[in-house]
Amino acid sequence: MNALDGLVEELTRLPGIGRKTARRLAYYLVKRSNDGPRRLAGALERVADQVGPCGECGNLSDADPCEYCRDPRRDTATVCVVEEASDISAIERSGRFGGLYHVLGGRLSPLDGVGPDDLNVARLEERVAGGVSEVIVATNPSIEGEATAAYLRRLLETRPAVKVTRPAQGLPVGGDLEYADGVTIGEALVGRREMQ
Amino acid sequence: MNALDGLVEELTRLPGIGRKTARRLAYYLVKRSNDGPRRLAGALERVADQVGPCGECGNLSDADPCEYCRDPRRDTATVCVVEEASDISAIERSGRFGGLYHVLGGRLSPLDGVGPDDLNVARLEERVAGGVSEVIVATNPSIEGEATAAYLRRLLETRPAVKVTRPAQGLPVGGDLEYADGVTIGEALVGRREMQ
Repeated sequence: MNALDGLVEELTRLPGIGRKTARRLAYYLVKRSNDGPRRLAGALERVADQVGPCGECGNLSDADPCEYCRDPRRDTATVCVVEEASDISAIERSGRFGGLYHVLGGRLSPLDGVGPDDLNVARLEERVAGGVSEVIVATNPSIEGEATAAYLRRLLETRPAVKVTRPAQGLPVGGDLEYADGVTIGEALVGRREMQ
Repeated sequence: MNALDGLVEELTRLPGIGRKTARRLAYYLVKRSNDGPRRLAGALERVADQVGPCGECGNLSDADPCEYCRDPRRDTATVCVVEEASDISAIERSGRFGGLYHVLGGRLSPLDGVGPDDLNVARLEERVAGGVSEVIVATNPSIEGEATAAYLRRLLETRPAVKVTRPAQGLPVGGDLEYADGVTIGEALVGRREMQ
């Protein structure tokens, strides 16, 4: 296989990148100069060398413990559980959470053979034993995410000192009622709050 | 900047890849193991090391002359002019062309400051002088592609021995008349052929 086809092959392994897109990206990268592919190769090598899971929370980071676990300003009594490390930046963007994180590395999915032992759950139990007062279970609002949340709630029931919460479900801010699905509207109505 | 953000930054330079997609790809690459980023980095390095323009036709290839230019079975009297090297594989997929290629490296675009001197035109004139009987101008059927085709036709008018042709425009095979735009239908009618 020639070098260009080899690059196309590697690019098609990425999620959401089909053969046509891979071909377009590969040609784009080589078209101007050798600098394009080398810069991206360098960034990839750095990631392979430096990035790994944080031993505390499972976040992907160049440091262990990661930037959140070693930040003395974070509230260590509140732990937000997420499915993937990529969910952390979404929550950080909200600017409304100042606690620590815990990355499960997936969700319970019996059909795919993913059970509790395949997730970063044992470490969560250890962390919760060490002075955590609230666990916010921010797994996705999908069927599997809900099942995972329910599992964690039962697991943590044995520790009455720990409050287990789940982010509210409802209408997305800036969304349009007309285009919201019935289940979301239902959740929004059930979770309605008195106006201030 | 940490390694992960650096990779996201590099990925957003690619066409059609926004910040969200770049972030998703970066996390996908590091999530499982260090093998993912390294394989892609290796493929990129190989491309940077090995791929360059063919001195004959401008195709991007690991060899110079490229696979088409050095293939003794290709018809050297017919040259198909394309805008980009990536167009060659599209034409090869048709299986209906056995001549040589010539890559312009773009199209005339006065608004972007791209004139004839910015394209691989001088080399085309040299090649045409050496026993070429037909030049198929397969630039894109866009305004700029048409302008480029018109320019090349005028340029090659000085060589009456060389036939300059353009691929037919019309309805795409397997397409639906109902969804075709008026200009395409018009071209299809103008270019109509007697049924055999």
